[in-house]
Amino acid sequence: MPEQALITQYFNRHNPISPNTSADATQVLLGIGDDAALITIPEHYELAISIDTLVTGVHFPPETAPEDIAYKALAVSLSDMAAMGARPETALLSLTIPTADKKWLKAFSDSLFELINIYRMRLIGGDTSRGPLLSITTVVNGLIPQGQAMRRSGARVGDALYVTGQLGDAGLGLQSGADPACRLRLNRPTPRVAFGIAIRDIASAAIDISDGLATDLEKLCAASGVGAQVNIDDVPRNKASIEMALTAGDDFELCFSVPPANDNKLETALIDLDCSYQKIGNITDKKTVHFLKKDGSSLKLKYKGYEHF
Amino acid sequence: MPEQALITQYFNRHNPISPNTSADATQVLLGIGDDAALITIPEHYELAISIDTLVTGVHFPPETAPEDIAYKALAVSLSDMAAMGARPETALLSLTIPTADKKWLKAFSDSLFELINIYRMRLIGGDTSRGPLLSITTVVNGLIPQGQAMRRSGARVGDALYVTGQLGDAGLGLQSGADPACRLRLNRPTPRVAFGIAIRDIASAAIDISDGLATDLEKLCAASGVGAQVNIDDVPRNKASIEMALTAGDDFELCFSVPPANDNKLETALIDLDCSYQKIGNITDKKTVHFLKKDGSSLKLKYKGYEHF
Repeated sequence: MPEQALITQYFNRHNPISPNTSADATQVLLGIGDDAALITIPEHYELAISIDTLVTGVHFPPETAPEDIAYKALAVSLSDMAAMGARPETALLSLTIPTADKKWLKAFSDSLFELINIYRMRLIGGDTSRGPLLSITTVVNGLIPQGQAMRRSGARVGDALYVTGQLGDAGLGLQSGADPACRLRLNRPTPRVAFGIAIRDIASAAIDISDGLATDLEKLCAASGVGAQVNIDDVPRNKASIEMALTAGDDFELCFSVPPANDNKLETALIDLDCSYQKIGNITDKKTVHFLKKDGSSLKLKYKGYEHF
Repeated sequence: MPEQALITQYFNRHNPISPNTSADATQVLLGIGDDAALITIPEHYELAISIDTLVTGVHFPPETAPEDIAYKALAVSLSDMAAMGARPETALLSLTIPTADKKWLKAFSDSLFELINIYRMRLIGGDTSRGPLLSITTVVNGLIPQGQAMRRSGARVGDALYVTGQLGDAGLGLQSGADPACRLRLNRPTPRVAFGIAIRDIASAAIDISDGLATDLEKLCAASGVGAQVNIDDVPRNKASIEMALTAGDDFELCFSVPPANDNKLETALIDLDCSYQKIGNITDKKTVHFLKKDGSSLKLKYKGYEHF
């Protein structure tokens, strides 16, 4: 199958729900089918850009269904938008596949566009190659009103520390014979996009939990030049052990800090959102992340989270 | 080596030549190190975005030096900018590597930043993963004044057809025992960025030659709803056969069409550029690409260029 035919058949789709064309949205002047896509962004907005690659056998088990692979590839990038407080608008996809299997491509692209349509996004470009190993790179572009992005560097001593959802379920989903609900959390993480947008004026810093709370919180603290104390009994979890809740990756929940002056604004801002959140501790001046048990003793973690190398 | 350390050591570099910070340039509000990069683009400009993936053993021989791989990965995306007439400004890199080999990473990143610095660009984001096969995805963002982009769809019957440089050298460079000059053209193609910018007000359509002139010209013609006649004796080439000049990929020269009214503007616009170009034919109403010999007979190509699948 020629590359052009493959792109036309599976990826050059128009959004059945009309994309967002309001004055405060990205204008797509040229989408798939040229050497580059062309967009303009509205005045007084910043463009957030993220890139993520998923490789078979590394980021998902080789037997993962194409529907789940497509969903996760895009959800991971949408989670980056959530962590910045950006509204995702356009995406690019680079797909490396061993063969142009029509059934696989249909399932993959149908699932991809399902998620694209939910967010009223547009797929504006991509690249497709044959290669020995399945690999998917997604780029998502989002918009944020000027100056409102949540950066990792904004946490200050005394801020409260929160997480969304329940941690560790995706980690349980990786185990053989896993509970289907946990498997679903692993394969289909929910990007907290609406949540990120709702808190961007309230939170001082945010990060999404991709490698595990302990290691991702360390990154947030390092970027902010602060430390954190986490009361481990407050960390929301279902069946995961506390160690797994603190160190398993792939949950794609948000971890964020809120200045004392804004703490009472959270509830109102989040009233319409169907997403739980929980205060788990505070930002400190200690420059380390400290996990505190109820009895006042510390939990030492040997393993802190996913290491890429 | 933790991912953060790898990024800090090799990829979070500041441009020794100060990046372009003029009012008509992209403003980078947040670069490497957060969940997403943040940029703003100046008023009255469009943002061009391209994405390309190179996989070892597919897009370059496995024994290719890291310096050449880095150069080519970025040059391929810069060539997309050239084909649009865009000025490249920012880049993102997603790198999948089997091991974090320090010598390899230093050579790769040094070469990447050499090219980034030549174009006064900034690397604003990326992703690094361990994976069994070396794979590099580059995203380049460029700027074009509103309405000035060269699209594939703009060619009209009667336009003259041009190409830059010499075709087929990269194809020769793939052969064993290749001339070092041809090997260099394969490994280090010159993105025709300045040329693309110089002709964007003059040309009606453009494409970069990545898969071979015959197949890429077909794409331009299909997008424009036209055909083309190529006088094969006018196709610029060094030692390549005419078949190789017409069908070999990886040259990354530009193929572009110029309306009769603009033909006399080319020479003046290109006077300062050290890049040869050659008229090779015309845009026709035939809907096919026709390769004409001097004696008036046709050259039929069995193989038209690189097929991705």
